[in-house]
Amino acid sequence: MSLSTQPYKGARDFYPEDKRIQKWMFAKLRDVVESFGYQEYDAPLIESFEIYAAKTGEEIVSEQLYSFEDRGGRKVAIRPEMTPSVSRMVAARRQELTYPLRWYSIPNLWRYERPQRGRLREHWQLNVDIFGVEGLEADVEIIQITDAILKTYGAKPDSYKIRVNSLKAAGAVYKDLRLDQAQHRAVAKLLDKRVRMSETEFNSSLKEAVGQKTADDLLEYWSKEQPPENIAALLNLLEKAGVSSIVFDPEIARGMDYYTDIVFEVFDESAENNRAMFGGGRYDGLVAEFGVEPVPTVGFGMGDVTLQNFLESNSLLPKLEPETNAAVILIGDVYGAVQPILSELRQNGLNLAVDPTERKLDAKIKNAAKSGVKYAIFIGEQELANQKYKLKNLKSSEEKELSADQIVQALSGR
Amino acid sequence: MSLSTQPYKGARDFYPEDKRIQKWMFAKLRDVVESFGYQEYDAPLIESFEIYAAKTGEEIVSEQLYSFEDRGGRKVAIRPEMTPSVSRMVAARRQELTYPLRWYSIPNLWRYERPQRGRLREHWQLNVDIFGVEGLEADVEIIQITDAILKTYGAKPDSYKIRVNSLKAAGAVYKDLRLDQAQHRAVAKLLDKRVRMSETEFNSSLKEAVGQKTADDLLEYWSKEQPPENIAALLNLLEKAGVSSIVFDPEIARGMDYYTDIVFEVFDESAENNRAMFGGGRYDGLVAEFGVEPVPTVGFGMGDVTLQNFLESNSLLPKLEPETNAAVILIGDVYGAVQPILSELRQNGLNLAVDPTERKLDAKIKNAAKSGVKYAIFIGEQELANQKYKLKNLKSSEEKELSADQIVQALSGR
Repeated sequence: MSLSTQPYKGARDFYPEDKRIQKWMFAKLRDVVESFGYQEYDAPLIESFEIYAAKTGEEIVSEQLYSFEDRGGRKVAIRPEMTPSVSRMVAARRQELTYPLRWYSIPNLWRYERPQRGRLREHWQLNVDIFGVEGLEADVEIIQITDAILKTYGAKPDSYKIRVNSLKAAGAVYKDLRLDQAQHRAVAKLLDKRVRMSETEFNSSLKEAVGQKTADDLLEYWSKEQPPENIAALLNLLEKAGVSSIVFDPEIARGMDYYTDIVFEVFDESAENNRAMFGGGRYDGLVAEFGVEPVPTVGFGMGDVTLQNFLESNSLLPKLEPETNAAVILIGDVYGAVQPILSELRQNGLNLAVDPTERKLDAKIKNAAKSGVKYAIFIGEQELANQKYKLKNLKSSEEKELSADQIVQALSGR
Repeated sequence: MSLSTQPYKGARDFYPEDKRIQKWMFAKLRDVVESFGYQEYDAPLIESFEIYAAKTGEEIVSEQLYSFEDRGGRKVAIRPEMTPSVSRMVAARRQELTYPLRWYSIPNLWRYERPQRGRLREHWQLNVDIFGVEGLEADVEIIQITDAILKTYGAKPDSYKIRVNSLKAAGAVYKDLRLDQAQHRAVAKLLDKRVRMSETEFNSSLKEAVGQKTADDLLEYWSKEQPPENIAALLNLLEKAGVSSIVFDPEIARGMDYYTDIVFEVFDESAENNRAMFGGGRYDGLVAEFGVEPVPTVGFGMGDVTLQNFLESNSLLPKLEPETNAAVILIGDVYGAVQPILSELRQNGLNLAVDPTERKLDAKIKNAAKSGVKYAIFIGEQELANQKYKLKNLKSSEEKELSADQIVQALSGR
């Protein structure tokens, strides 16, 4: 019986045309976050199970984690998120590192989910974190970067909305309303799922969790548009930084257990896909879980699947050409003799794919055109003797006789 | 109890200074392979267990594979190598793809090994494969690329040696000597382990496997320096391509079961680390395991750990500067007012890290210098009014008053 050619469910094969899009997206992410002084790090794909059990959130750990015992009997997991890993790395060098510490990474992450639009089992996620800043400036910068990324891709300000909330302010209200811890959690969970529920469903679940009176009080609180003090100050600074697509939203809760105050989510504002794409917030306590002094931290994660969906639905993905500049078609038995000139062209920055098969010339030209490459260079004994080579544009069929230097110029613009 | 700050055994944390080295190494790999017309692909980290059981080799599957059942009861594995994944992807589009097909990837791979020099549980591996070429030109190109990569890093021709063999030619000899399949396998396994054995150990194991008479015949065959016909032709073409660090070695066997003819291994020639670093060869049968017509294929894999060891021991790793061009130190309460000028500098390609803490000026300067960044830019109300900013070289302590344009020029050379 032969093996299946399908990739594992919920994961993607990246053929070169898919990989090119990913590379294009990631290069832009790197440009923006590096312009804010962030440096790239990485951590192992496998971590001990415990670092997720601590703070990642119950749903992920009990239902979505890829965890297993290794051959040495250690309980391990494939990372479902990067935050515990980066907190561990900062804790390991708590004393030596320089703060503010600005780090980013683009790891692949795994969650056992039912595959659907925007959710796969394997995805990549930009993680951006600033460590060591207690003040609002860190929250401002992280939100500013999210905004700068979307603008870099050409997203219009009305195509997305950044919704911010203060968990501390919300917590104070919940305390006034005498919610116990279990009720507090139930409310946060309901808020996180609200977009996927009808209003009736949400209201009756809320009543069930906290009783009619408190439910009414909560609904009234959430309908307020007046932001608490820290959010007002945040919005003021972000306005100065040119971030306009932003509002206060007292219902933003986030799924993870480690957030401590300001949180935000970026929503796709298109009618057909109005939902949270990514988000983040302040988590001042996670590094300390590794037995060191706490480090104030703000960060966010941005997944490649939701990002790509957003760019596609807003027509912001360009058509990308293959990296290969030209197919080289040999005329006669010149494979050995042609090596020096190929080497020269490559050292001048050209990417050249030689067709060494024994097919007929016509078949080779057709084949080169089918491969998507734009030019073909023909080299035979005569060309080698004259040091002039035929360059053919496979789209327009235009042909020129050129020297090596001229070919480099024509193909790379140098 | 607090969590451990250690990474999983045999895996590495990449702090920014480590990640920079990896990115530098990988950028060079991409440059070289793309210059030969190869395009990048990727595949999921998790594959079905079966694709490794087929041809990867018994030691890896039974002792080193990270395999487990997912939450849906599927038997899966974290990839220990990329070749089965890429063969699966080619098989899935066997008809639509254009040949010669040139693909590369730099996946992270997992094997449960006892961590030691050059061997870790998680490593990255450049995989380069050419599909659809039956002739020797494909073998030539793959070996040529290995050589071009090492030369690109500045490796001297006498610092490494490429050892090539023909499994077909060796197979014919073994057949003449009437080795059965079990003996053939035992001999291949012994050859693969030979560098880690003493001569006496090797000879007695060989005698045990095939008897004294055949052992003597094999030892005589391996001492021959006359290459078989296809290797002679290969060496001739490689010489024309400028590859000089290459020899015929009838003992090269490779560990995987899927190789079908020419194989090669690249040895570190330094006295203290004389061993195989990486290798590859022709495997014409693997794509057909997925139920399609066979595709002739040649490829190689180059691991990042052995590569980095080689570059380090040959002093070929440069000192790399942080990506951040300057620390921005604010004077007074100008966080909001400074945003437009920061945005302008960033859009001109500068990477700037703002210190938004309330530390004293001296502390901020010390901190910036400690972070490794080369320059500091000072901005206060006066600087904003004059549109001139103080740029300080933190190493030489030289200071200049410059406009935004001049700062861009000074820091990026534009």
